[in-house]
Amino acid sequence: MFRATIDAELFKDAIEVVSVLVEESIFNADENMVVSKAVEPANAAMVVLEMKKEAFDVYESDSHELGIDLKRLSNVLDMAQRGDMVELELEEHKLKVVMGGLRYHLSLLDPSTIRKIPKVPQIQLPARVVVDGSTIQRAIKAASSVGSYVALGVEDESFYIETEGDTDKLRFVIGRDELIDLQGDDVRSLFSLDYLRSITKSKAFGRAVVTLEIGIDYPIKISFSFADGNINTMYIVAPRVEAV
Amino acid sequence: MFRATIDAELFKDAIEVVSVLVEESIFNADENMVVSKAVEPANAAMVVLEMKKEAFDVYESDSHELGIDLKRLSNVLDMAQRGDMVELELEEHKLKVVMGGLRYHLSLLDPSTIRKIPKVPQIQLPARVVVDGSTIQRAIKAASSVGSYVALGVEDESFYIETEGDTDKLRFVIGRDELIDLQGDDVRSLFSLDYLRSITKSKAFGRAVVTLEIGIDYPIKISFSFADGNINTMYIVAPRVEAV
Amino acid sequence: MFRATIDAELFKDAIEVVSVLVEESIFNADENMVVSKAVEPANAAMVVLEMKKEAFDVYESDSHELGIDLKRLSNVLDMAQRGDMVELELEEHKLKVVMGGLRYHLSLLDPSTIRKIPKVPQIQLPARVVVDGSTIQRAIKAASSVGSYVALGVEDESFYIETEGDTDKLRFVIGRDELIDLQGDDVRSLFSLDYLRSITKSKAFGRAVVTLEIGIDYPIKISFSFADGNINTMYIVAPRVEAV
Repeated sequence: MFRATIDAELFKDAIEVVSVLVEESIFNADENMVVSKAVEPANAAMVVLEMKKEAFDVYESDSHELGIDLKRLSNVLDMAQRGDMVELELEEHKLKVVMGGLRYHLSLLDPSTIRKIPKVPQIQLPARVVVDGSTIQRAIKAASSVGSYVALGVEDESFYIETEGDTDKLRFVIGRDELIDLQGDDVRSLFSLDYLRSITKSKAFGRAVVTLEIGIDYPIKISFSFADGNINTMYIVAPRVEAV
Repeated sequence: MFRATIDAELFKDAIEVVSVLVEESIFNADENMVVSKAVEPANAAMVVLEMKKEAFDVYESDSHELGIDLKRLSNVLDMAQRGDMVELELEEHKLKVVMGGLRYHLSLLDPSTIRKIPKVPQIQLPARVVVDGSTIQRAIKAASSVGSYVALGVEDESFYIETEGDTDKLRFVIGRDELIDLQGDDVRSLFSLDYLRSITKSKAFGRAVVTLEIGIDYPIKISFSFADGNINTMYIVAPRVEAV
Repeated sequence: MFRATIDAELFKDAIEVVSVLVEESIFNADENMVVSKAVEPANAAMVVLEMKKEAFDVYESDSHELGIDLKRLSNVLDMAQRGDMVELELEEHKLKVVMGGLRYHLSLLDPSTIRKIPKVPQIQLPARVVVDGSTIQRAIKAASSVGSYVALGVEDESFYIETEGDTDKLRFVIGRDELIDLQGDDVRSLFSLDYLRSITKSKAFGRAVVTLEIGIDYPIKISFSFADGNINTMYIVAPRVEAV
């Protein structure tokens, strides 16, 4: 049994956090929460979404593994009107989605056909930057028109995003006074802009306070919460080796 | 002689009601009104637009048959600014369109080159649903992302729109309390989504109170009025036979 | 040495005035102003942009010839937020562009690779029309959906824009009372709509009071100022010979 009710807007935001990276994902529901872990096809970026039962208005569930086509689910949720609640119910291998007078039966995917859920690596990173998601969004968007890789780093008590194209160079510096928090060592790692552009484009990202954990030529951990801390999101992105 | 003055926005809305279905149409003007009847190329959907002389600020006309390229006329009307009046005058096989300082001479099409005006069938349908056009617009839009056919029906004192895709199923139910009126028997007919999407997308449709007359595997009649009842629109769409 | 600070929005508007016509241009800076003159590839339209030092908040410059890729510079300026100032500085063959925390190094183009700056012809034209740019924008946009050439002229104390397509004809008349000024003789010249559409589409054009100087089958001079008269723009467009 799986039966849940949640604000449609909030659910849409949660789904988008995963759909910016992958097209389908397994959602594991149990009595306490729904968790989805997914890795994009090139194995270079991973997302973990955790929705506690407190994020829902109604939540009752046994253990279930739901294979979701994120695009189709998003299409349904797009039909919501402001303030709509969405009722979800597992019904004979379909997820019934009810919003107002609309009743949608979403076919579930066979979990065995979906990319294996990765083991999430436990990594410790030497620097930690806390900043408004909208600031990162703007910097990554700016970088996108210049190059295809971007370096994120900490230097001189500041966080920076840097990119270099064939001819031009861009550096976006955010000083300690504009950051919410900055701790740890000087670091620098290089990433593909594609993944960072995807990750930063969700509505939830733009509204959240985001924590970046960065190392030296090491993966980055990007995390944020919403829905009063009841929905937690974490991304890990593998670094690119910087050409010398 | 044909000479008329009408609010540009209103005229644009009236033209759109026809142009969502066909590219060119004959407008028959006489001393009392302008009527345009057109059928789309596959013969599966038909529109009748009736503009009474009361919809115009000035209206004088003999009997005329005007072949109109709807796209070109719409382009001219797009140049209107809010509140503009448009003056129309037949002038040597052209329709002169005047709005503010703009004077446009629209070539008329030879009526004999335009698809023959169909005889509008007189049909009696067993169920009648009256509902806000915007609600139908929303339901058809929702259905569009699922399937290519849509069933419209009445059941359990409710009106429903239902569609089924390869994997998913959507049902949009509007209960008696959300309907403006519901009369008659239980019915159900299947239609191509394409036609319903075209018909429901006009601005006038979205703002109107719409009457749907439905039968059992029978054509649907969709009608609404605007401009204080002086512009009347009717569509008839042929049904699809439901695969069993 | 070249160092200048200017409102980002204003600078963007000035760059757009040139970029509507050409992709790259030479900006000549000296101690008093920055001037850019450019001619589009077919030699039929030319722009002169003059930014006096008073348009800048800070301005210090020796004589410099800066080859600018307008598209790339526009991309950087698009990153500005409302109210941002942009600091410009010439630094080792690059133009350093600083806005808030963002630092961008724009490669300069070799001026010798850019189309030779034309000598601006000194022409006297018999008629002069002063009108809101937004009115011209609207008329040219209307004409665009009809033909590919447009005649501009003065007749009966009015300014007109006229175009003829394969079937339709449009005439946009602006009477003396809607014009800011009208002086001189009756005139008429024909132009390619492409150039007029490009020239009239910039934001600065739409907000400015524009002066048109027109002759009989002769080039047109289109000029306007903004930033309290400290940025001056002039276009000259060659006429098309009218088919008789």
